[in-house]
Amino acid sequence: MDAVAARSGVHRTTVYRRWGDVGGLLADVLDAASDDDWQPPDTGSLEGDLAALNQEIQTAMAAQPPIMAALIAASFRSEKAADAQQRLWEDRYARCEIVVSRAVRRGDIPPRTDARRLLIAATAPLYHQLVLLRTPHDPQLPGHAARTAVLAAAAGAFAEPEPPSADDT
Amino acid sequence: MDAVAARSGVHRTTVYRRWGDVGGLLADVLDAASDDDWQPPDTGSLEGDLAALNQEIQTAMAAQPPIMAALIAASFRSEKAADAQQRLWEDRYARCEIVVSRAVRRGDIPPRTDARRLLIAATAPLYHQLVLLRTPHDPQLPGHAARTAVLAAAAGAFAEPEPPSADDT
Repeated sequence: MDAVAARSGVHRTTVYRRWGDVGGLLADVLDAASDDDWQPPDTGSLEGDLAALNQEIQTAMAAQPPIMAALIAASFRSEKAADAQQRLWEDRYARCEIVVSRAVRRGDIPPRTDARRLLIAATAPLYHQLVLLRTPHDPQLPGHAARTAVLAAAAGAFAEPEPPSADDT
Repeated sequence: MDAVAARSGVHRTTVYRRWGDVGGLLADVLDAASDDDWQPPDTGSLEGDLAALNQEIQTAMAAQPPIMAALIAASFRSEKAADAQQRLWEDRYARCEIVVSRAVRRGDIPPRTDARRLLIAATAPLYHQLVLLRTPHDPQLPGHAARTAVLAAAAGAFAEPEPPSADDT
């Protein structure tokens, strides 16, 4: 809240009056972000797309001021913040599904690959290492996690056993 | 702190007097845990070991009272708690390295597989879904994440490019 007041050139009571608490501020920030025109990378390969996506996550987590890290921390204190953050992530994973369907279309991974599970496998090591384990910066991390998910996907790790329903084309 | 006081049958001021804040309490809890004789599962297969490990994590995250979740939340407010938690996780990943070396010995995965990277790939989706995404309980999650890591490992995702130094036998 103090950082927002400082950057806006207003008193912190103004910020509190507008948003109530950090959860309310966060909810607005995240809802605004989910309205944006962010699209996932399109590099021509699944591994390239996932590595670029992971690079974005790593850069965002290392940014100063540490907005992303602050948002995650706030989600443990505020239900409103947690809900808003969850909505943002679901929005981002949903937008990234095209990365997986492009790869299926290219024949790089099996048809009926579960996009969400693949995307979580590709990005989870980033969040785990940066947010929870607080591993020192590793420039290879984005690429490693991307390659791991691609190898697993090619081996059928995310293939759905049941065919999708008829209206899912 | 209140839960600890209630369970111990003492007044909360006693708990605060002993540990100062939740970070101090957490640090002691985690340091005590890391002295224990916990050993990773030994089921006879890498996938079985990782699935059992993930099952432990999922059970711990769902336990009531939610100690694990509270510890993670506290790590965002207290450096002491964050350091203690980091030590605990590093201890657990180090103890789990035998799971990987057994799999290498059985010939299930390539020699010089990076144990830590494999273990993080196997467990990170659990933490990501349960702690950050707050995905509803999915009984298949432990097994799915284990299988994904095993398929990636078998495909060489965690193989180290350089041979280890001569004294690393």
